Amino acid sequence: MAVDTATISRALVEQIVREAVAKRLGAGGPTASASERKLVVHASARHVHLSRQDLDVLFGAGHELTPDKDLYQEGNYAAAETVMLVGPRRRTLGSVRVLGPLRKESQVELAITDAIQLGIDAPVRLSGDIEGTPGVVVIGPAGIVELRRGVIRAAIHAHMNPAEAAHYGVKQGDRMKLRVAGAAPVVFEGVQVRIDPSSRLNVHMDTDEANACALHLATGFELFK
Amino acid sequence: MAVDTATISRALVEQIVREAVAKRLGAGGPTASASERKLVVHASARHVHLSRQDLDVLFGAGHELTPDKDLYQEGNYAAAETVMLVGPRRRTLGSVRVLGPLRKESQVELAITDAIQLGIDAPVRLSGDIEGTPGVVVIGPAGIVELRRGVIRAAIHAHMNPAEAAHYGVKQGDRMKLRVAGAAPVVFEGVQVRIDPSSRLNVHMDTDEANACALHLATGFELFK
Repeated sequence: MAVDTATISRALVEQIVREAVAKRLGAGGPTASASERKLVVHASARHVHLSRQDLDVLFGAGHELTPDKDLYQEGNYAAAETVMLVGPRRRTLGSVRVLGPLRKESQVELAITDAIQLGIDAPVRLSGDIEGTPGVVVIGPAGIVELRRGVIRAAIHAHMNPAEAAHYGVKQGDRMKLRVAGAAPVVFEGVQVRIDPSSRLNVHMDTDEANACALHLATGFELFK
Repeated sequence: MAVDTATISRALVEQIVREAVAKRLGAGGPTASASERKLVVHASARHVHLSRQDLDVLFGAGHELTPDKDLYQEGNYAAAETVMLVGPRRRTLGSVRVLGPLRKESQVELAITDAIQLGIDAPVRLSGDIEGTPGVVVIGPAGIVELRRGVIRAAIHAHMNPAEAAHYGVKQGDRMKLRVAGAAPVVFEGVQVRIDPSSRLNVHMDTDEANACALHLATGFELFK
Protein backbone atom coordinates (compact mmCIF):
# COMPACT_ATOMS: atom_id res chain seq x y z
CA MET A 1 0.00 0.00 0.00
CA ALA A 2 2.89 2.26 0.67
CA VAL A 3 3.76 1.70 -2.94
CA ASP A 4 0.50 3.10 -4.23
CA THR A 5 0.84 6.19 -2.14
CA ALA A 6 4.38 6.79 -3.27
CA THR A 7 3.42 6.27 -6.88
CA ILE A 8 0.56 8.72 -6.84
CA SER A 9 2.56 11.34 -5.08
CA ARG A 10 5.47 10.95 -7.44
CA ALA A 11 3.29 11.12 -10.51
CA LEU A 12 2.09 14.52 -9.44
CA VAL A 13 5.59 15.65 -8.63
CA GLU A 14 6.58 14.66 -12.12
CA GLN A 15 3.69 16.61 -13.57
CA ILE A 16 4.79 19.70 -11.75
CA VAL A 17 8.32 19.11 -12.85
CA ARG A 18 7.28 18.86 -16.45
CA GLU A 19 5.56 22.19 -16.13
CA ALA A 20 8.68 23.70 -14.62
CA VAL A 21 10.74 22.26 -17.42
CA ALA A 22 8.92 24.51 -19.84
CA LYS A 23 10.46 27.55 -18.22
CA ARG A 24 13.36 28.94 -20.17
CA LEU A 25 15.27 32.14 -19.77
CA GLY A 26 17.02 34.05 -22.49
CA ALA A 27 16.92 33.51 -26.21
CA GLY A 28 19.15 31.43 -28.39
CA GLY A 29 18.91 28.26 -30.42
CA PRO A 30 21.47 25.61 -31.24
CA THR A 31 23.72 28.10 -32.98
CA ALA A 32 23.54 30.84 -30.35
CA SER A 33 26.64 31.68 -28.35
CA ALA A 34 26.92 30.33 -24.83
CA SER A 35 25.85 33.63 -23.36
CA GLU A 36 22.66 33.58 -25.39
CA ARG A 37 21.84 29.95 -24.75
CA LYS A 38 18.78 29.26 -22.74
CA LEU A 39 19.36 28.11 -19.19
CA VAL A 40 17.16 25.09 -18.63
CA VAL A 41 16.54 23.87 -15.09
CA HIS A 42 15.14 20.40 -14.55
CA ALA A 43 14.01 18.56 -11.46
CA SER A 44 14.84 14.87 -11.49
CA ALA A 45 12.40 12.61 -9.69
CA ARG A 46 13.94 9.57 -8.00
CA HIS A 47 15.26 7.04 -10.49
CA VAL A 48 17.68 4.18 -11.03
CA HIS A 49 20.45 3.49 -13.50
CA LEU A 50 21.08 -0.19 -14.16
CA SER A 51 24.04 -2.27 -15.27
CA ARG A 52 23.66 -4.88 -18.01
CA GLN A 53 24.00 -7.62 -15.42
CA ASP A 54 21.34 -6.21 -13.07
CA LEU A 55 18.95 -5.54 -15.97
CA ASP A 56 19.24 -9.22 -16.92
CA VAL A 57 18.29 -10.31 -13.42
CA LEU A 58 15.50 -7.78 -12.94
CA PHE A 59 13.85 -7.98 -16.36
CA GLY A 60 15.16 -11.23 -17.86
CA ALA A 61 18.33 -12.20 -19.72
CA GLY A 62 18.94 -10.08 -22.79
CA HIS A 63 16.16 -7.62 -21.98
CA GLU A 64 16.50 -4.22 -23.65
CA LEU A 65 15.18 -1.03 -22.07
CA THR A 66 12.20 0.54 -23.83
CA PRO A 67 12.85 4.26 -24.30
CA ASP A 68 9.71 6.09 -23.23
CA LYS A 69 10.76 9.72 -23.22
CA ASP A 70 13.93 11.45 -24.33
CA LEU A 71 15.65 13.55 -21.68
CA TYR A 72 17.22 16.91 -22.40
CA GLN A 73 20.76 15.52 -22.41
CA GLU A 74 21.19 13.75 -25.74
CA GLY A 75 21.13 9.96 -25.63
CA ASN A 76 19.52 9.82 -22.18
CA TYR A 77 15.94 8.69 -21.76
CA ALA A 78 13.33 7.66 -19.24
CA ALA A 79 12.56 4.01 -19.88
CA ALA A 80 9.14 2.43 -19.70
CA GLU A 81 10.57 0.06 -17.07
CA THR A 82 10.15 0.66 -13.35
CA VAL A 83 11.41 -1.21 -10.29
CA MET A 84 10.47 -1.36 -6.64
CA LEU A 85 12.98 -0.49 -3.93
CA VAL A 86 12.95 -2.12 -0.51
CA GLY A 87 14.82 -0.54 2.38
CA PRO A 88 16.47 -2.19 5.37
CA ARG A 89 13.28 -2.25 7.46
CA ARG A 90 11.03 -3.47 4.63
CA ARG A 91 9.93 0.04 3.78
CA THR A 92 9.31 0.42 0.09
CA LEU A 93 9.24 2.83 -2.83
CA GLY A 94 7.27 1.48 -5.76
CA SER A 95 7.42 2.27 -9.45
CA VAL A 96 10.81 3.92 -9.47
CA ARG A 97 11.68 4.85 -13.04
CA VAL A 98 14.69 3.31 -14.82
CA LEU A 99 16.75 5.80 -16.87
CA GLY A 100 18.73 4.73 -19.90
CA PRO A 101 21.20 4.02 -21.30
CA LEU A 102 22.74 1.25 -19.19
CA ARG A 103 25.74 2.05 -17.01
CA LYS A 104 28.75 0.12 -15.81
CA GLU A 105 27.30 -0.07 -12.30
CA SER A 106 23.76 0.30 -11.01
CA GLN A 107 22.91 3.42 -9.02
CA VAL A 108 19.84 4.72 -7.21
CA GLU A 109 19.22 8.48 -7.00
CA LEU A 110 16.77 9.60 -4.33
CA ALA A 111 15.63 12.87 -2.85
CA ILE A 112 16.11 12.98 0.92
CA THR A 113 12.33 12.73 1.30
CA ASP A 114 12.51 9.42 -0.60
CA ALA A 115 15.49 8.24 1.43
CA ILE A 116 13.60 8.93 4.66
CA GLN A 117 10.67 6.97 3.28
CA LEU A 118 12.97 4.03 2.57
CA GLY A 119 14.82 4.36 5.86
CA ILE A 120 18.19 4.86 4.16
CA ASP A 121 20.69 7.56 5.03
CA ALA A 122 21.65 8.64 1.50
CA PRO A 123 24.83 10.71 1.24
CA VAL A 124 24.99 13.73 -1.09
CA ARG A 125 27.17 12.64 -4.02
CA LEU A 126 27.74 13.33 -7.67
CA SER A 127 26.36 10.66 -9.96
CA GLY A 128 28.96 7.90 -10.37
CA ASP A 129 30.68 8.61 -7.05
CA ILE A 130 29.25 5.70 -5.09
CA GLU A 131 32.22 4.32 -3.14
CA GLY A 132 31.04 3.60 0.39
CA THR A 133 27.39 4.45 -0.24
CA PRO A 134 24.52 2.34 1.15
CA GLY A 135 22.83 -0.42 -0.80
CA VAL A 136 19.19 -1.32 -1.34
CA VAL A 137 17.08 -4.23 -2.59
CA VAL A 138 15.74 -3.74 -6.13
CA ILE A 139 12.76 -5.78 -7.32
CA GLY A 140 11.87 -6.22 -10.96
CA PRO A 141 9.32 -8.41 -12.75
CA ALA A 142 11.88 -11.17 -13.40
CA GLY A 143 14.05 -11.08 -10.33
CA ILE A 144 15.62 -9.34 -7.37
CA VAL A 145 19.00 -7.66 -7.02
CA GLU A 146 20.55 -6.70 -3.73
CA LEU A 147 22.78 -3.73 -4.49
CA ARG A 148 25.67 -3.57 -2.04
CA ARG A 149 26.13 0.15 -2.77
CA GLY A 150 24.87 2.89 -5.06
CA VAL A 151 22.16 4.78 -3.16
CA ILE A 152 22.82 8.52 -3.25
CA ARG A 153 21.10 11.84 -3.03
CA ALA A 154 22.47 13.35 -6.23
CA ALA A 155 24.17 16.69 -5.70
CA ILE A 156 22.69 19.53 -7.75
CA HIS A 157 24.80 19.90 -10.91
CA ALA A 158 25.09 21.75 -14.20
CA HIS A 159 25.73 19.95 -17.48
CA MET A 160 27.53 22.02 -20.09
CA ASN A 161 29.84 21.67 -23.08
CA PRO A 162 33.38 23.10 -23.18
CA ALA A 163 32.27 26.31 -24.93
CA GLU A 164 29.65 26.94 -22.28
CA ALA A 165 32.20 26.20 -19.55
CA ALA A 166 34.61 28.68 -21.14
CA HIS A 167 31.85 31.28 -21.22
CA TYR A 168 31.31 30.89 -17.49
CA GLY A 169 35.04 30.53 -16.79
CA VAL A 170 34.61 27.22 -14.99
CA LYS A 171 36.27 23.84 -15.21
CA GLN A 172 35.25 20.27 -14.48
CA GLY A 173 34.28 19.83 -10.84
CA ASP A 174 33.99 23.55 -10.04
CA ARG A 175 31.02 24.70 -8.03
CA MET A 176 28.65 27.37 -9.28
CA LYS A 177 25.56 29.04 -7.86
CA LEU A 178 22.03 28.91 -9.18
CA ARG A 179 19.57 31.60 -8.13
CA VAL A 180 15.91 30.69 -8.51
CA ALA A 181 13.69 33.78 -8.31
CA GLY A 182 10.02 33.62 -7.48
CA ALA A 183 7.70 32.88 -4.58
CA ALA A 184 10.41 31.10 -2.59
CA PRO A 185 13.72 32.57 -3.75
CA VAL A 186 16.74 30.34 -3.19
CA VAL A 187 20.40 30.28 -4.22
CA PHE A 188 21.85 26.80 -4.51
CA GLU A 189 25.54 27.32 -3.79
CA GLY A 190 26.92 23.89 -4.53
CA VAL A 191 26.05 23.39 -8.20
CA GLN A 192 28.73 21.03 -9.49
CA VAL A 193 30.05 21.57 -13.02
CA ARG A 194 29.99 18.57 -15.36
CA ILE A 195 31.56 19.26 -18.73
CA ASP A 196 31.09 17.01 -21.74
CA PRO A 197 31.27 17.81 -25.45
CA SER A 198 27.84 16.23 -25.97
CA SER A 199 26.15 18.19 -23.18
CA ARG A 200 23.65 21.03 -23.36
CA LEU A 201 23.54 23.73 -20.69
CA ASN A 202 21.19 22.31 -18.09
CA VAL A 203 20.92 22.32 -14.30
CA HIS A 204 19.59 19.20 -12.58
CA MET A 205 18.12 19.41 -9.10
CA ASP A 206 16.05 16.84 -7.23
CA THR A 207 12.42 17.07 -6.15
CA ASP A 208 13.24 18.29 -2.63
CA GLU A 209 15.19 21.18 -4.09
CA ALA A 210 12.45 21.84 -6.65
CA ASN A 211 9.79 21.94 -3.92
CA ALA A 212 11.93 24.05 -1.60
CA CYS A 213 12.31 26.80 -4.21
CA ALA A 214 8.76 26.27 -5.56
CA LEU A 215 10.25 25.61 -8.98
CA HIS A 216 6.80 25.45 -10.55
CA LEU A 217 6.34 29.11 -9.54
CA ALA A 218 9.85 30.25 -10.52
CA THR A 219 10.08 33.53 -12.39
CA GLY A 220 13.77 33.41 -13.33
CA PHE A 221 17.08 31.56 -13.11
CA GLU A 222 20.64 32.84 -12.84
CA LEU A 223 23.73 30.63 -13.00
CA PHE A 224 26.95 32.25 -11.81
CA LYS A 225 30.34 31.59 -10.23
CA MET B 1 -3.12 3.03 3.78
CA ALA B 2 -1.86 6.31 2.47
CA VAL B 3 -2.22 7.48 6.02
CA ASP B 4 0.14 4.89 7.43
CA THR B 5 2.78 5.67 4.87
CA ALA B 6 2.54 9.36 5.46
CA THR B 7 2.72 8.86 9.19
CA ILE B 8 5.82 6.70 9.11
CA SER B 9 7.58 8.97 6.70
CA ARG B 10 6.74 12.05 8.72
CA ALA B 11 7.85 10.47 11.97
CA LEU B 12 11.29 9.97 10.51
CA VAL B 13 11.36 13.48 9.13
CA GLU B 14 10.59 14.73 12.59
CA GLN B 15 13.35 12.64 14.06
CA ILE B 16 15.84 14.13 11.63
CA VAL B 17 14.52 17.56 12.38
CA ARG B 18 14.98 17.04 16.09
CA GLU B 19 18.58 16.11 15.44
CA ALA B 20 19.08 19.23 13.36
CA VAL B 21 17.52 21.31 16.07
CA ALA B 22 20.43 20.45 18.31
CA LYS B 23 22.77 22.38 16.04
CA ARG B 24 23.59 25.80 17.36
CA LEU B 25 26.10 28.33 16.28
CA GLY B 26 27.81 30.86 18.47
CA ALA B 27 27.69 31.18 22.22
CA GLY B 28 25.35 33.24 24.33
CA GLY B 29 22.62 32.61 26.84
CA PRO B 30 19.57 34.62 27.77
CA THR B 31 21.65 37.62 28.78
CA ALA B 32 23.97 37.63 25.78
CA SER B 33 23.72 40.49 23.30
CA ALA B 34 21.89 39.88 20.05
CA SER B 35 25.14 39.38 18.17
CA GLU B 36 26.13 36.62 20.55
CA ARG B 37 22.80 34.88 20.60
CA LYS B 38 22.68 31.46 19.12
CA LEU B 39 20.96 31.20 15.78
CA VAL B 40 18.54 28.30 15.98
CA VAL B 41 17.09 26.91 12.78
CA HIS B 42 14.06 24.64 12.96
CA ALA B 43 12.21 22.66 10.35
CA SER B 44 8.46 22.58 10.87
CA ALA B 45 6.68 19.45 9.73
CA ARG B 46 3.17 19.95 8.36
CA HIS B 47 0.72 21.00 11.05
CA VAL B 48 -2.59 22.72 11.71
CA HIS B 49 -3.66 25.60 13.91
CA LEU B 50 -7.29 25.44 15.06
CA SER B 51 -9.91 27.96 16.11
CA ARG B 52 -11.98 27.40 19.25
CA GLN B 53 -15.00 26.68 17.11
CA ASP B 54 -13.25 24.11 14.89
CA LEU B 55 -11.65 22.42 17.91
CA ASP B 56 -15.14 21.97 19.38
CA VAL B 57 -16.38 20.26 16.23
CA LEU B 58 -13.30 18.11 15.69
CA PHE B 59 -12.65 17.01 19.27
CA GLY B 60 -15.93 17.73 21.10
CA ALA B 61 -17.46 20.82 22.71
CA GLY B 62 -15.21 22.39 25.31
CA HIS B 63 -12.23 20.17 24.46
CA GLU B 64 -8.86 21.55 25.55
CA LEU B 65 -5.64 20.79 23.65
CA THR B 66 -3.16 18.58 25.49
CA PRO B 67 0.30 20.15 25.30
CA ASP B 68 2.74 17.40 24.35
CA LYS B 69 5.95 19.28 23.65
CA ASP B 70 6.92 22.91 24.10
CA LEU B 71 8.20 24.63 20.97
CA TYR B 72 11.11 27.03 20.95
CA GLN B 73 8.88 30.11 20.75
CA GLU B 74 7.46 30.62 24.25
CA GLY B 75 3.82 29.65 24.72
CA ASN B 76 3.69 27.54 21.56
CA TYR B 77 3.45 23.78 21.76
CA ALA B 78 2.83 20.64 19.76
CA ALA B 79 -0.40 19.13 21.05
CA ALA B 80 -1.07 15.45 21.51
CA GLU B 81 -4.03 15.86 19.14
CA THR B 82 -3.78 15.04 15.45
CA VAL B 83 -6.26 15.32 12.57
CA MET B 84 -6.61 13.83 9.12
CA LEU B 85 -6.74 16.02 6.02
CA VAL B 86 -8.70 15.09 2.92
CA GLY B 87 -8.01 16.80 -0.38
CA PRO B 88 -10.37 17.54 -3.26
CA ARG B 89 -9.87 14.14 -4.92
CA ARG B 90 -10.12 12.14 -1.69
CA ARG B 91 -6.38 12.04 -1.27
CA THR B 92 -5.40 12.10 2.38
CA LEU B 93 -2.71 13.04 4.86
CA GLY B 94 -3.15 11.28 8.19
CA SER B 95 -2.00 12.19 11.67
CA VAL B 96 -1.27 15.83 11.05
CA ARG B 97 -0.19 17.44 14.30
CA VAL B 98 -2.20 20.23 15.92
CA LEU B 99 -0.11 23.10 17.30
CA GLY B 100 -1.28 25.23 20.20
CA PRO B 101 -2.41 27.64 21.39
CA LEU B 102 -5.72 28.14 19.57
CA ARG B 103 -5.99 30.87 16.95
CA LYS B 104 -8.74 33.13 15.72
CA GLU B 105 -8.98 31.16 12.47
CA SER B 106 -7.87 27.65 11.57
CA GLN B 107 -4.89 27.27 9.23
CA VAL B 108 -3.08 24.34 7.63
CA GLU B 109 0.66 24.60 6.93
CA LEU B 110 2.04 22.10 4.42
CA ALA B 111 5.29 21.56 2.60
CA ILE B 112 4.84 21.46 -1.18
CA THR B 113 5.51 17.71 -1.07
CA ASP B 114 2.51 17.40 1.28
CA ALA B 115 0.37 19.67 -0.88
CA ILE B 116 1.13 17.52 -3.93
CA GLN B 117 0.17 14.45 -1.93
CA LEU B 118 -3.17 16.09 -1.05
CA GLY B 119 -3.71 17.45 -4.55
CA ILE B 120 -3.88 21.06 -3.35
CA ASP B 121 -2.03 23.96 -4.92
CA ALA B 122 -0.83 25.68 -1.73
CA PRO B 123 0.39 29.26 -2.17
CA VAL B 124 3.52 30.47 -0.37
CA ARG B 125 2.27 32.75 2.41
CA LEU B 126 3.23 34.02 5.81
CA SER B 127 1.29 32.42 8.64
CA GLY B 128 -1.97 34.32 9.15
CA ASP B 129 -2.13 35.64 5.58
CA ILE B 130 -4.80 33.29 4.29
CA GLU B 131 -7.10 35.51 2.24
CA GLY B 132 -7.92 33.68 -0.99
CA THR B 133 -6.10 30.46 -0.07
CA PRO B 134 -7.56 27.01 -0.76
CA GLY B 135 -9.55 25.03 1.77
CA VAL B 136 -9.44 21.40 2.88
CA VAL B 137 -11.51 18.88 4.80
CA VAL B 138 -10.29 18.24 8.36
CA ILE B 139 -11.36 15.10 10.19
CA GLY B 140 -11.11 14.70 13.95
CA PRO B 141 -12.35 12.02 16.34
CA ALA B 142 -15.56 13.90 17.11
CA GLY B 143 -16.42 15.54 13.82
CA ILE B 144 -15.49 17.00 10.46
CA VAL B 145 -14.79 20.60 9.46
CA GLU B 146 -14.64 21.81 5.90
CA LEU B 147 -12.27 24.75 5.92
CA ARG B 148 -13.15 27.21 3.18
CA ARG B 149 -9.62 28.61 3.24
CA GLY B 150 -6.38 28.41 5.19
CA VAL B 151 -4.10 25.96 3.37
CA ILE B 152 -0.67 27.50 2.81
CA ARG B 153 2.94 26.58 2.30
CA ALA B 154 4.42 28.75 5.04
CA ALA B 155 7.13 31.09 3.80
CA ILE B 156 10.48 30.65 5.54
CA HIS B 157 10.67 33.24 8.33
CA ALA B 158 12.77 34.47 11.24
CA HIS B 159 11.28 35.17 14.64
CA MET B 160 13.13 37.78 16.66
CA ASN B 161 12.56 40.36 19.38
CA PRO B 162 13.05 44.12 18.84
CA ALA B 163 16.63 44.07 20.20
CA GLU B 164 17.58 41.31 17.78
CA ALA B 165 15.88 43.17 14.94
CA ALA B 166 17.84 46.30 15.84
CA HIS B 167 21.05 44.29 15.82
CA TYR B 168 20.36 43.10 12.29
CA GLY B 169 18.98 46.49 11.22
CA VAL B 170 15.70 45.02 10.03
CA LYS B 171 12.06 45.85 10.58
CA GLN B 172 8.79 43.92 10.51
CA GLY B 173 8.18 42.33 7.14
CA ASP B 174 11.72 42.79 5.82
CA ARG B 175 13.35 39.90 4.02
CA MET B 176 16.66 38.46 5.11
CA LYS B 177 18.89 35.67 3.83
CA LEU B 178 19.81 32.45 5.58
CA ARG B 179 22.91 30.58 4.43
CA VAL B 180 23.02 26.91 5.37
CA ALA B 181 26.52 25.49 4.96
CA GLY B 182 27.22 21.79 4.61
CA ALA B 183 26.74 18.95 2.17
CA ALA B 184 24.09 20.82 0.16
CA PRO B 185 24.81 24.53 0.67
CA VAL B 186 21.82 26.80 0.11
CA VAL B 187 20.96 30.45 0.68
CA PHE B 188 17.28 31.06 1.34
CA GLU B 189 16.75 34.61 0.12
CA GLY B 190 13.18 35.25 1.20
CA VAL B 191 13.38 34.85 4.98
CA GLN B 192 10.60 37.08 6.30
CA VAL B 193 11.21 38.98 9.51
CA ARG B 194 8.62 38.59 12.27
CA ILE B 195 9.29 40.79 15.29
CA ASP B 196 7.60 40.28 18.63
CA PRO B 197 8.77 41.20 22.13
CA SER B 198 8.19 37.62 23.29
CA SER B 199 10.17 36.03 20.44
CA ARG B 200 13.54 34.33 20.48
CA LEU B 201 15.85 34.45 17.47
CA ASN B 202 14.77 31.46 15.41
CA VAL B 203 14.40 30.62 11.73
CA HIS B 204 11.53 28.34 10.69
CA MET B 205 11.68 26.45 7.42
CA ASP B 206 9.52 23.56 6.23
CA THR B 207 10.54 19.98 5.57
CA ASP B 208 11.09 20.51 1.83
CA GLU B 209 13.53 23.28 2.58
CA ALA B 210 15.17 21.20 5.32
CA ASN B 211 15.62 18.27 2.95
CA ALA B 212 16.84 20.46 0.09
CA CYS B 213 19.69 21.86 2.19
CA ALA B 214 20.25 18.55 4.00
CA LEU B 215 19.65 20.36 7.28
CA HIS B 216 20.57 17.25 9.26
CA LEU B 217 24.07 17.52 7.77
CA ALA B 218 24.37 21.31 8.14
CA THR B 219 27.69 22.59 9.43
CA GLY B 220 26.75 26.22 9.94
CA PHE B 221 24.11 28.93 9.61
CA GLU B 222 24.39 32.60 8.71
CA LEU B 223 21.50 35.07 8.84
CA PHE B 224 22.07 38.36 7.04
CA LYS B 225 20.38 41.22 5.20
